[in-house]
Amino acid sequence: MGFVCGVNFFPSFLPTQRSGEQFFAEALHLSCVADELGFSHVRTVEHYFRPYGGWMPNPVVFLAAVAAQTRRVRLVTGAALPVFNHPIKLAGELAMLDCLSQGRLDAGFGRAFLPEEFAAFERSLDESRARFESGIAAVTKLWTQSETTHADAFYHFGPLSMLPKPVQQPHPPILIAAVGTPSSFEWAGQQGYGLMIVPYLSKFEDVQANLARYRHAFATAWPDRPVRPPHMSFHLHVAETDAQAEREAAPHLEQYTRLFRESATAWQRTASAAYPGYTELASQLERLSFDRIMAEGRAFVGSPATVARQVAHILELFGDVEPSLSIHFGSLPLAASEQSLRLFAAEVMPHLEGTCVPSSVA
Amino acid sequence: MGFVCGVNFFPSFLPTQRSGEQFFAEALHLSCVADELGFSHVRTVEHYFRPYGGWMPNPVVFLAAVAAQTRRVRLVTGAALPVFNHPIKLAGELAMLDCLSQGRLDAGFGRAFLPEEFAAFERSLDESRARFESGIAAVTKLWTQSETTHADAFYHFGPLSMLPKPVQQPHPPILIAAVGTPSSFEWAGQQGYGLMIVPYLSKFEDVQANLARYRHAFATAWPDRPVRPPHMSFHLHVAETDAQAEREAAPHLEQYTRLFRESATAWQRTASAAYPGYTELASQLERLSFDRIMAEGRAFVGSPATVARQVAHILELFGDVEPSLSIHFGSLPLAASEQSLRLFAAEVMPHLEGTCVPSSVA
Repeated sequence: MGFVCGVNFFPSFLPTQRSGEQFFAEALHLSCVADELGFSHVRTVEHYFRPYGGWMPNPVVFLAAVAAQTRRVRLVTGAALPVFNHPIKLAGELAMLDCLSQGRLDAGFGRAFLPEEFAAFERSLDESRARFESGIAAVTKLWTQSETTHADAFYHFGPLSMLPKPVQQPHPPILIAAVGTPSSFEWAGQQGYGLMIVPYLSKFEDVQANLARYRHAFATAWPDRPVRPPHMSFHLHVAETDAQAEREAAPHLEQYTRLFRESATAWQRTASAAYPGYTELASQLERLSFDRIMAEGRAFVGSPATVARQVAHILELFGDVEPSLSIHFGSLPLAASEQSLRLFAAEVMPHLEGTCVPSSVA
Repeated sequence: MGFVCGVNFFPSFLPTQRSGEQFFAEALHLSCVADELGFSHVRTVEHYFRPYGGWMPNPVVFLAAVAAQTRRVRLVTGAALPVFNHPIKLAGELAMLDCLSQGRLDAGFGRAFLPEEFAAFERSLDESRARFESGIAAVTKLWTQSETTHADAFYHFGPLSMLPKPVQQPHPPILIAAVGTPSSFEWAGQQGYGLMIVPYLSKFEDVQANLARYRHAFATAWPDRPVRPPHMSFHLHVAETDAQAEREAAPHLEQYTRLFRESATAWQRTASAAYPGYTELASQLERLSFDRIMAEGRAFVGSPATVARQVAHILELFGDVEPSLSIHFGSLPLAASEQSLRLFAAEVMPHLEGTCVPSSVA
């Protein structure tokens, strides 16, 4: 099995830097380029209000446009947030996307973690895991049953029959966003779900341990099914030389971190037992300079040869994972992001064929 | 001003007749043809669960795909239903569509009227007007204000800033779905909104009177703004001869009516003072045979010459309206719908140039 990786749009520009119209045209263009170059997926996020992702209040809408202009890439909600969406809406629009793309949807779900988003939707942080699990269960029932009845602490409906049904049977693959909670990794494995890992702030030893937990739980619960290689998110910027790549990427990666920190500051006046450690999030981000990101191997930035080594190192550390590359972060100019994507496909990917470490090694 | 009309997708096929995947591929193809042929808009509906429209639980998702494959047509939610959607979601995804389409959104809103949909979303029919008006007000604030605070009987949020902002400033045109309630027509005019009229079951004299109310209310409230020609929905099927068109269209138009009736039967066990007369809906539909539809001039079906006369008659009756043509109803084969669309553009539209009656005449 060769090297497989996709692209990830996590918008992180300021309204003064470009318009939504310009960003979506650029992201659509880059999605078409990624489709042509053989990338495996186009993924995007659900966030609200602030420039940290908030340009994408419904990832399905953007991915429907990508579906209409591409033929091969898989379309990934990374992640849709059941806590803010009625399961009937979520099941319906994801199934529409699976139909519009002829069965190319990977349905990624997350718990959400930004206090301002919970406040705006009048949801309690303490309920987030219950709403997340209940939402996934309800969506799955709506996709697969001809007559669905649902009743839990949050929603009551049915019997009713959801239309349309997804193309992929029994339903599109489900991926779970996971950061650092061991039980989340174990739960995803037990359910037989795929995984989308964001290792931006985690100790890599912790990620290795959580990945092992996931793979073990998956193999125990589903001995006859192969473990799907988890998505793992990294920023990517390739240029002709290390110096050029670092010079181009640094201000935009730092802007991403700064906007992340601004969205996370609400944790300094918030406490929820459901989110242990999150009050430290903003100060963790404050310490995460570009130099530190590079020293700790948390981003792929450099010449093609350098980036090939960086990616190979990650594959050695974590085994068979599918990188999800954030290529258009901060306010990087379109030309720089496109050049980076093309260099990666032409001069990095060929060096990574055959470097995958079987997951049993990790 | 020449003759302007668009196309309207109101899916009304059975799961045994085609898949969602096939329908969306066909509707996308017909949207591209309509764009090339100079039709003014592509519109679609929001409904749930039953084959009467229920293939389209989020019209924005389909229209985002249309936006990605077209360059000229306007994209119309006909109608999005605030009662079933959080205003933050609705404002966000409609603004994304306006961005993805470079400013081609017409945001159409409706009150909704199917009891089963209200039950599934745990909404009261009696609240539908309040939720409809409140939802439109909240969405408009989220689009236009940099810091929005909202508090009413249904939602509390803010201060927050919604992203992205729509391309069209101060915001995309708003259209209101209206059937027969005089005060709804007056209200839409007072607000300066456009109108989407469904005259399928109404006495044409009532529609004329309501249109006059709308135009008067609009002109009184907004003396400096021209009244936008209202959308008016009709089924269309053109073929080489009247006999062929009628033979092809009849079973599919009757299927549409039958599925409409099946969705409306819930009114026989429902009562709401907010929906006077709706308990009669199913029996009204039972009497609406294909022959009666044709005798009463409620659909455009025939040879190009016949259809040109039918459309001209509607323009005489109602003045300056923009027909919204349902071209792919029931389980009409794609080839028949496409041929009908092409015949209409080539052989009907040229005869209608210059036939528009100024709205002051109606």
